[in-house]
Amino acid sequence: MEQNVFFLPHEGLRLAELAEFLGAELVNSDHADVIVRSVAPISRARAGDICYILSRRSRDELATCEASAVICDKALADLVPQHLPVMLSSNPHAAFAMAGGLFYPAALRPVAFSGESEIAPSAVIDPSAKLEKGVIVEPMAVIGAHAEIGEGTRIGAQSIIGPNVKIGRDCSIAAGASILCALLGNGVIIHNGARIGQDGFGYAPGPRGMIKIVQIGRVIIQDNVEIGANTTIDRGAMDDTVIGEGTKIDNQVQIGHNVQIGRHCAIVAQVGIAGSAKIGNGVQIGGQVGIKGHVTIGDGVQIAAQSGIMTDLAAGGQYGGTPARPLNDYLRDVAQQMSKTKLRGKKPGGEQND
Amino acid sequence: MEQNVFFLPHEGLRLAELAEFLGAELVNSDHADVIVRSVAPISRARAGDICYILSRRSRDELATCEASAVICDKALADLVPQHLPVMLSSNPHAAFAMAGGLFYPAALRPVAFSGESEIAPSAVIDPSAKLEKGVIVEPMAVIGAHAEIGEGTRIGAQSIIGPNVKIGRDCSIAAGASILCALLGNGVIIHNGARIGQDGFGYAPGPRGMIKIVQIGRVIIQDNVEIGANTTIDRGAMDDTVIGEGTKIDNQVQIGHNVQIGRHCAIVAQVGIAGSAKIGNGVQIGGQVGIKGHVTIGDGVQIAAQSGIMTDLAAGGQYGGTPARPLNDYLRDVAQQMSKTKLRGKKPGGEQND
Amino acid sequence: MEQNVFFLPHEGLRLAELAEFLGAELVNSDHADVIVRSVAPISRARAGDICYILSRRSRDELATCEASAVICDKALADLVPQHLPVMLSSNPHAAFAMAGGLFYPAALRPVAFSGESEIAPSAVIDPSAKLEKGVIVEPMAVIGAHAEIGEGTRIGAQSIIGPNVKIGRDCSIAAGASILCALLGNGVIIHNGARIGQDGFGYAPGPRGMIKIVQIGRVIIQDNVEIGANTTIDRGAMDDTVIGEGTKIDNQVQIGHNVQIGRHCAIVAQVGIAGSAKIGNGVQIGGQVGIKGHVTIGDGVQIAAQSGIMTDLAAGGQYGGTPARPLNDYLRDVAQQMSKTKLRGKKPGGEQND
Repeated sequence: MEQNVFFLPHEGLRLAELAEFLGAELVNSDHADVIVRSVAPISRARAGDICYILSRRSRDELATCEASAVICDKALADLVPQHLPVMLSSNPHAAFAMAGGLFYPAALRPVAFSGESEIAPSAVIDPSAKLEKGVIVEPMAVIGAHAEIGEGTRIGAQSIIGPNVKIGRDCSIAAGASILCALLGNGVIIHNGARIGQDGFGYAPGPRGMIKIVQIGRVIIQDNVEIGANTTIDRGAMDDTVIGEGTKIDNQVQIGHNVQIGRHCAIVAQVGIAGSAKIGNGVQIGGQVGIKGHVTIGDGVQIAAQSGIMTDLAAGGQYGGTPARPLNDYLRDVAQQMSKTKLRGKKPGGEQND
Repeated sequence: MEQNVFFLPHEGLRLAELAEFLGAELVNSDHADVIVRSVAPISRARAGDICYILSRRSRDELATCEASAVICDKALADLVPQHLPVMLSSNPHAAFAMAGGLFYPAALRPVAFSGESEIAPSAVIDPSAKLEKGVIVEPMAVIGAHAEIGEGTRIGAQSIIGPNVKIGRDCSIAAGASILCALLGNGVIIHNGARIGQDGFGYAPGPRGMIKIVQIGRVIIQDNVEIGANTTIDRGAMDDTVIGEGTKIDNQVQIGHNVQIGRHCAIVAQVGIAGSAKIGNGVQIGGQVGIKGHVTIGDGVQIAAQSGIMTDLAAGGQYGGTPARPLNDYLRDVAQQMSKTKLRGKKPGGEQND
Repeated sequence: MEQNVFFLPHEGLRLAELAEFLGAELVNSDHADVIVRSVAPISRARAGDICYILSRRSRDELATCEASAVICDKALADLVPQHLPVMLSSNPHAAFAMAGGLFYPAALRPVAFSGESEIAPSAVIDPSAKLEKGVIVEPMAVIGAHAEIGEGTRIGAQSIIGPNVKIGRDCSIAAGASILCALLGNGVIIHNGARIGQDGFGYAPGPRGMIKIVQIGRVIIQDNVEIGANTTIDRGAMDDTVIGEGTKIDNQVQIGHNVQIGRHCAIVAQVGIAGSAKIGNGVQIGGQVGIKGHVTIGDGVQIAAQSGIMTDLAAGGQYGGTPARPLNDYLRDVAQQMSKTKLRGKKPGGEQND
């Protein structure tokens, strides 16, 4: 990719410095003063870039690679040609991710609109709101009564922070998001247009239509959670909706009232989780999955994209399909379906006789 | 749940007053002066709370329940221990919902950002717009030319009301929603980030790409409709898109141009309804369902989550699956699939021989 | 539909003028001075309306039609009764679309909030941003540092244009959209609440949770693209996310990082396209389809609604289902499923014995 104006390369770090930051080992100290400024995939890394490899399949690409350094596991170090500086790491992917964050700190957070002043004059902040020092409020943000915002947090342009909401330190609320009836920990990132804390979908059938059941719970978002663009998270009905520490949620996910999600989960785009479902720790959910209300998903479960979860899922399992079943079963069903399709096309006599 | 700052408990009502409001019967008039302030599920209701039961399965919970009153049907009254005041109602769920609304009126509507003044000075309101008395306009809302807003309606922070839009009385437009080319009845609630009235998706293939078909219809939203966060409703092409009285729509639902939805429907999150579909009255649609364009869904139909509707569905039926079929058939297919999965796992010889 | 206030009929054009504009042939020059002002479907076209027909099935409707003109192919002209002026076009649908745009130019673009002045005083525009002449900035829009906006482009109310973003000429950014880290061509339309250019969903597993992989690519949106309400398009990780010329994307579509979409595609609502997928030219994707990351979809492919694409799809094919298979196979499977359901219902002895 030609250089772009949104993320300028770093002014440069010596490999020795970078290795120390990453907790990696620079194999040849002759390379200590080589300067790196950016990250790139091995297929097009050039001078100044650092890249990484995970398997022996990268051998050919290494032969012609012009990167200024390659991060790899000790077991793969022999693959790397002499001319390329090698950094050893037991987790090259994580080391590469850390390098990226070091080179492009601005890219770790939603795009900033902050001008010279910390509090944009166009923002509307209730006088009773408490902002710690170092809080940035971008243009046209609205902050309600008695809201509390921690040090180092940025409230994005045109975002909305409801009355009494508490946001911890070093959080980023991107432009156009709304946060209501919620308590956020530290280091939380909320992307553009996410809607947190509106009331859940609950009604009782009455004689003249549905009667709204008041939703008086909250949304609790623990430390280091990230929530994608246009995702919606309803507040609890009479309990709380909880998103556990370190969980990452992609765009356009819908999370119903009272849902409890554990720590360090990854939830891909357009997933829907119905009310009162309980998701364990370290759960990974593929895109467009639907999860029924009140089910329990055990720790470490992995769910294939587009699956429909109608029952509890035991911890540690991999599942797929609608209804969801063990992943191997699902993949076999998929393979059978595909093979049936191919056979059918070739079957003499054709489908008229089916 | 510990007390929360977003919804403070009510100052308290006498059970006699509450019974009168609910149209319920307080069994023992000795309890007339007991004070209630909040609602809770039976599992953790305490002094000051009112709860409800729907079946005999709640017997054990009742034994240890500390609520200040229990709402139940006459047939279940004998279950309730002597120490608990009983309110009889033929519809305990509805009575409980009404009690919730009475205790927490603020929770019946999107979170308010209104300060002391009724019209926020930062709002931009076209001079030709007509606002009845008692209209509240929150910070940074934009109201276009010739828009008309009825008494008691609140226009939320940073929401957008298009030119010529008409909104009835006692409506709530939440922060960050946009309403264009639409006529809204009374008592309508539009949640955060909902997008109403942008043009539908219509093109004619031309020699140099797709030619836009102008969308000159409107969106008609009847009384007491509620529309969820980040839901999108396109205006009609040459007809109108219509949402019938009392219908409730959850978050992230997509409703295409010319769709007509009847009265008192419930549509769960992430449903997609393609253009010109007709949905009857009292229809219930589960999450992530997709409905093909131009189909007709009869009154009272219930559709299971994630179903795909490709054909008309007769009134009163229950359906599920893709393609949608009678719910019992679908559930049997689901059960067979699950049972096949289980058998397979146990089959001697394993899947290598399949 | 009764007249509506959102889109007033045109002041009127002579049929001769309209024919010239459309490149159509007015059969009978006696009708040259007939005035038309609007478009309507044949079923309710009246005096002043123009309509079109595509097949002989419209014969009955034509008999009672009161339109001021009918557009049709030469082969169908004999169907039209004597009293109705006929315009011949080899592509009546496209001609009708063009007529609509001529009568209702305002409906070709998102609803405008622009008052008398071109730059709303409430907008916050960084002094370093460059706006060509004729740029309209509506109330409360925020434009970041060094952004560049081309002549004739309208930046909608409360929309957000990030630092360094470049937007071409004659574009429309609707109210409440956000555009970050993106380069837009000419004639691009972005609808309300669309979120363009936030960072993609990428993490490396680390010892203490997921480590964010910086997303330093861009979003490139070519000429005449249209993007629907509340759609989200993530910027590239180390490459760019690209939407090709003339492609039309509906509401609530999710497009992951590094996705490349060709020219003149049509993508219906609620589709999800995972990271690094490559979509060819002229591809049509039905609603709620999910496309796996890194797959390649050939030119001209058509995909039925709700399908799940797990593998590459060859150019020119039609596909449906999950897993996606040739459309004919999928439709046969659907028909079998439906027929099985019907048989089952009629089977003597019933399902108790199943």
